[in-house]
Amino acid sequence: MECQDYGLKRTSEKNNLNLNPLQRGGLLPKESRKALIEFSDGYSICDYCAGRLDKISKPGINHFLDDLASFIGVDHARTVHGAREGKFAVMHAMCQPGDNIVVDGNAHYTTHLAAERNQVNIVEVSNDGYPEYRIKPDGFKEVLDVQLDKGADISLVLLTHVDGDYGNLTDARAVGKIAHDHGIPLLLNCAYSMGRLPINAKALNADFVVGSGHKSMAASGPVGVLGLKDEYADQVLKKSKRHAVKEIEMLGCTSRGAPVATLMASLPHVIDRVENWDQELNKTREFVKKMEEFGGIKQLGVKPKEHDLVRFETPIFDDIASKHPRRGFFLYEELKNRNIVGIKRGQTKWFKCSTYGFSQEQVDYIINAFTEIVEKYQK
Amino acid sequence: MECQDYGLKRTSEKNNLNLNPLQRGGLLPKESRKALIEFSDGYSICDYCAGRLDKISKPGINHFLDDLASFIGVDHARTVHGAREGKFAVMHAMCQPGDNIVVDGNAHYTTHLAAERNQVNIVEVSNDGYPEYRIKPDGFKEVLDVQLDKGADISLVLLTHVDGDYGNLTDARAVGKIAHDHGIPLLLNCAYSMGRLPINAKALNADFVVGSGHKSMAASGPVGVLGLKDEYADQVLKKSKRHAVKEIEMLGCTSRGAPVATLMASLPHVIDRVENWDQELNKTREFVKKMEEFGGIKQLGVKPKEHDLVRFETPIFDDIASKHPRRGFFLYEELKNRNIVGIKRGQTKWFKCSTYGFSQEQVDYIINAFTEIVEKYQK
Repeated sequence: MECQDYGLKRTSEKNNLNLNPLQRGGLLPKESRKALIEFSDGYSICDYCAGRLDKISKPGINHFLDDLASFIGVDHARTVHGAREGKFAVMHAMCQPGDNIVVDGNAHYTTHLAAERNQVNIVEVSNDGYPEYRIKPDGFKEVLDVQLDKGADISLVLLTHVDGDYGNLTDARAVGKIAHDHGIPLLLNCAYSMGRLPINAKALNADFVVGSGHKSMAASGPVGVLGLKDEYADQVLKKSKRHAVKEIEMLGCTSRGAPVATLMASLPHVIDRVENWDQELNKTREFVKKMEEFGGIKQLGVKPKEHDLVRFETPIFDDIASKHPRRGFFLYEELKNRNIVGIKRGQTKWFKCSTYGFSQEQVDYIINAFTEIVEKYQK
Repeated sequence: MECQDYGLKRTSEKNNLNLNPLQRGGLLPKESRKALIEFSDGYSICDYCAGRLDKISKPGINHFLDDLASFIGVDHARTVHGAREGKFAVMHAMCQPGDNIVVDGNAHYTTHLAAERNQVNIVEVSNDGYPEYRIKPDGFKEVLDVQLDKGADISLVLLTHVDGDYGNLTDARAVGKIAHDHGIPLLLNCAYSMGRLPINAKALNADFVVGSGHKSMAASGPVGVLGLKDEYADQVLKKSKRHAVKEIEMLGCTSRGAPVATLMASLPHVIDRVENWDQELNKTREFVKKMEEFGGIKQLGVKPKEHDLVRFETPIFDDIASKHPRRGFFLYEELKNRNIVGIKRGQTKWFKCSTYGFSQEQVDYIINAFTEIVEKYQK
């Protein structure tokens, strides 16, 4: 049979400045590109496996997991396929079908899917609505009190450390304290934080953390991180009755391929870069300030920004679109003509973007591009 | 903090002839190496996602899945992280905790783990023991009759198409017929067959098939294939109530990274190579014949071979080991000195190997190496 042409090229996204927040934290450093090529073939990470991926010493996955655990402040670290698979595994081990979990209203859709796949009900702690969409720790206290008064079984609290809609950083430490006061463990979803900013699970009162290699840890997908306190190791890392060394929730092994090699190669780079988080934050705040100066552009989410993911509402561009022959596509096309990508085609009412990892010169170039576009249509 | 040295090099396994059956079917062709590099960064496969990985058209994951479905004879194909994750998803959708499934006695440990994680009991159809360890279709009839007579709930029959211990190819078509006669669907684990030999799920009476990209489809891990009949799509590919386009068992999306790009790039190569399966089989049979001619080496599993994975019992090497100053390590070291790797260090009683994908010249070289080693110690 003949295959179709799948167009396996990525020229435009690689060669232009990509503002998509999803793509900013997963760029590989040079050493990780080498690791990817080195372990490109099939099962090559498993050359020296004696039965447990996490104990392979050549390459040193065992040492890597020790370093990773100490970097993120957990007793045990495992690689998983991504944050969602980590959340599913924790819920699967900690909850029974029909249980309830308390979740913030800004949770990623994969939190909802992990719960639905586990037949676990979600009780939500709402955000405070437009324009900040803030998640307040006290909301967890209220919801937990009401639920426990009703006699509901609450087996887990899940908090999105930084959400993907507004880029709000929540006060995990306070939510963890409330959860623990109610005798319930906290799972912290760090997909947008671990690898960008310093994370210490214990200091954040998190019993479980998940992270995303491809989203925020400079790794090639799919790969993620699951970290947990020793207290829950027997439950979440329970071993098979029949195959004594294999962990059930990991289905024996998880990241059996090149992505884990890139995560390993990137760890020193990631450890260094989280130290520059304050600079990234200043760059973001400066970027927001300049964008808002145009008028008709407003940053949503908590102000000032505490994360690089920024959501703008942009009536200025929506007005232009309403009169433009290319309608909503004009913004994408104007940006693309200036070698900037990552904002969805056709979208002008609002967009998400990030300048994470860009140099100041690149950010200035981006601001300048927006200035040109605004001026072109405001004449 | 300082990281340890993880030794992310793979020189020995790449530069020598690797007999490990696990490594023979996952070698990337040139075009897949290019795809790996192209999509190396983080979430780069998701540049043009509108909510469903399997519907992305740039690169053409949607077209690829159509081609793949027609290549393996299923109505629906999805990528998963590997065969084990595919088996888990099918069981999770098709079985309730406490259900029973009937499984062949040569099943991979991950079949047992997927069942254990789902709290599903396994009823086993034994192999016929030494030396062939053959799985007979009639065994399924006997076990199913007994179980159904007892009133047990059997929700699935799972057959290992080619097992990883003996490389026995089972008669899936006959087992599928028996399962269907009992009103039970068949899940066929093709981790060692799909991508090596032609698979047509419908012709094999399989309702579900799983395959492994890194094991047998010339892809970079972790990536696998799940294929199913339309009849079961509503159940296994059920969509979320809250997020209407997202499939629950896939947690929304699965292979969000470079491995899926390699699987796509490899498909034309894989489609071509399964046509040469007869030649691979002849090469294997010839290899077995020459190895057995040494005396003290005996092929286990079904004879003649119907798959490239060969298990030998090797009393000849165990005898040498008992007198050798390096004991069991001598064989590994003698082979390594001749640029042959892939047989576990210290192992001399038996070993598994494969010549899949080697040229006849390379196979001759391997046979010659074994000849030298045997002659060296038999003087």
